[in-house]
Amino acid sequence: MSRIAYVNGRYLPHKHASIHIEDRGFQFADAVYEVIAVRRGRLIDEAMHLGRLHRSLRELRIAPPMSDAAMHAVMAEVVRRNRVVEGMLYLQISRGSAPRDFAFPNRVKPSLVMTSRRTRGPAPRLIEEGVGVITIDDIRWARPDIKSVSLLPNALGKQRAKEVGAYEAWQVDAAGNVTEGTSSNAWIVTAAGDVITRQADTSILNGITRIGLIGLLEREGLRVVERPFTVAEAKGAREAFLTSTTNFVLPIVAIDGTPIGNGHPGSVVRKLRQVYDDYATAQSQAQ
Amino acid sequence: MSRIAYVNGRYLPHKHASIHIEDRGFQFADAVYEVIAVRRGRLIDEAMHLGRLHRSLRELRIAPPMSDAAMHAVMAEVVRRNRVVEGMLYLQISRGSAPRDFAFPNRVKPSLVMTSRRTRGPAPRLIEEGVGVITIDDIRWARPDIKSVSLLPNALGKQRAKEVGAYEAWQVDAAGNVTEGTSSNAWIVTAAGDVITRQADTSILNGITRIGLIGLLEREGLRVVERPFTVAEAKGAREAFLTSTTNFVLPIVAIDGTPIGNGHPGSVVRKLRQVYDDYATAQSQAQ
Repeated sequence: MSRIAYVNGRYLPHKHASIHIEDRGFQFADAVYEVIAVRRGRLIDEAMHLGRLHRSLRELRIAPPMSDAAMHAVMAEVVRRNRVVEGMLYLQISRGSAPRDFAFPNRVKPSLVMTSRRTRGPAPRLIEEGVGVITIDDIRWARPDIKSVSLLPNALGKQRAKEVGAYEAWQVDAAGNVTEGTSSNAWIVTAAGDVITRQADTSILNGITRIGLIGLLEREGLRVVERPFTVAEAKGAREAFLTSTTNFVLPIVAIDGTPIGNGHPGSVVRKLRQVYDDYATAQSQAQ
Repeated sequence: MSRIAYVNGRYLPHKHASIHIEDRGFQFADAVYEVIAVRRGRLIDEAMHLGRLHRSLRELRIAPPMSDAAMHAVMAEVVRRNRVVEGMLYLQISRGSAPRDFAFPNRVKPSLVMTSRRTRGPAPRLIEEGVGVITIDDIRWARPDIKSVSLLPNALGKQRAKEVGAYEAWQVDAAGNVTEGTSSNAWIVTAAGDVITRQADTSILNGITRIGLIGLLEREGLRVVERPFTVAEAKGAREAFLTSTTNFVLPIVAIDGTPIGNGHPGSVVRKLRQVYDDYATAQSQAQ
């Protein structure tokens, strides 16, 4: 658990960290967020996360609450105060607090909240044996590319997965194509060895791990194709996996109960997990 | 402004009314709400609002934080402490506060927040002259029938309307039909005098004013048809109007700049506003 939280200029004991009841993040989901992995006390892909954060803020026309340099200092301080070596940092910016009205308030100050906690990532057994996913209708709003806290359908989907013993739910659009997981991007490996993931248009959140992995795949000489794929294609794929900030690269061995490949993590995903892990480790050491 | 807010068992000065930063209403839009009109210090259509609240809670599997009788007592107390005679009460229930995780937390206590403030409803000039609306794509999630705080697209739409000098934005689905406003239901009156509003399936929030007005229309001998209508049909309609808890019945005299009818509020909407106003007044006196 985060022990110290940053809230609008103050470092507070987590228990007492609160925001006003008329914060627009609470009343309108009018807020954006980022989750950044921490390794050896360092923030992984910090610049990319801040870049995406700025894009989300721009799309919603929320002013950044401080400069990137100031943000960096606060993030580092939150990690330090929580003594997080391996874990994550969570940050959320909302449009601010104002008397409730749908339209944007005038002269409001955005609110900024950060927490950091130790996490271990997925259990070794899950990495070794892989996980199962279910498929559900993608019922989200039309702009999941903005990393907003409009996450109710994601929460409902994840809960449904959990209740049937699955690790994640893959969301499927009206055309029958997989968009992404409720908190992860979706990938398959074809019989020809191509690595497929949906193109990052407005229908998915362009994961930082997704972007990083695409670069690494190309370096590894693997062919990456960004295109839609159906649930049927995924079930018949040689391998499947998911990526996210907290999971890195995690093998999927069953979709809706259908085993993928031989039902065990394949060679491509095992290699990619190693490659990504090395990349994150190198980054944590280089800084 | 609400001077006293109710937050999880305590009546607090508005300024100090806060919720935890890990409240799921803040991090996941995992919360529902109601807005209830207050007249002569009394809550209008309270039972219907509580009924809809229970439906929203059931759909999201959030446990009611207290009995309806207790809720009634708190609502009355919040209105009383804020000395609201004419105005509104806002209440929000979230799944509760827990370490951030998409799936539902175990054994979490729902959080309950209430505020009440004086409001005057729309300015007399708007009632007299009518308002303009614009049309925008309906980009919301697939379950706007649940009164959740997943309101980011609604906020963006209302802001767009405000910036072009319109009062409201009507959202239009992929088939070209109007679903509803960002915080109101949409109505038209045909040349034949039929009153049309979209059927209350999962594509709209079934407004309490909408439900009340349908009953009143039937009593007035007007034919109500619940069916989809296109933007083109609306622009060619004899009259148009919106309904909501805070606006009651408000005439629309332009859609995307196209005048409706002769560009002035028509006889049907003027009558309906009066009828609804009488209904609310009668209710506030009867209790």
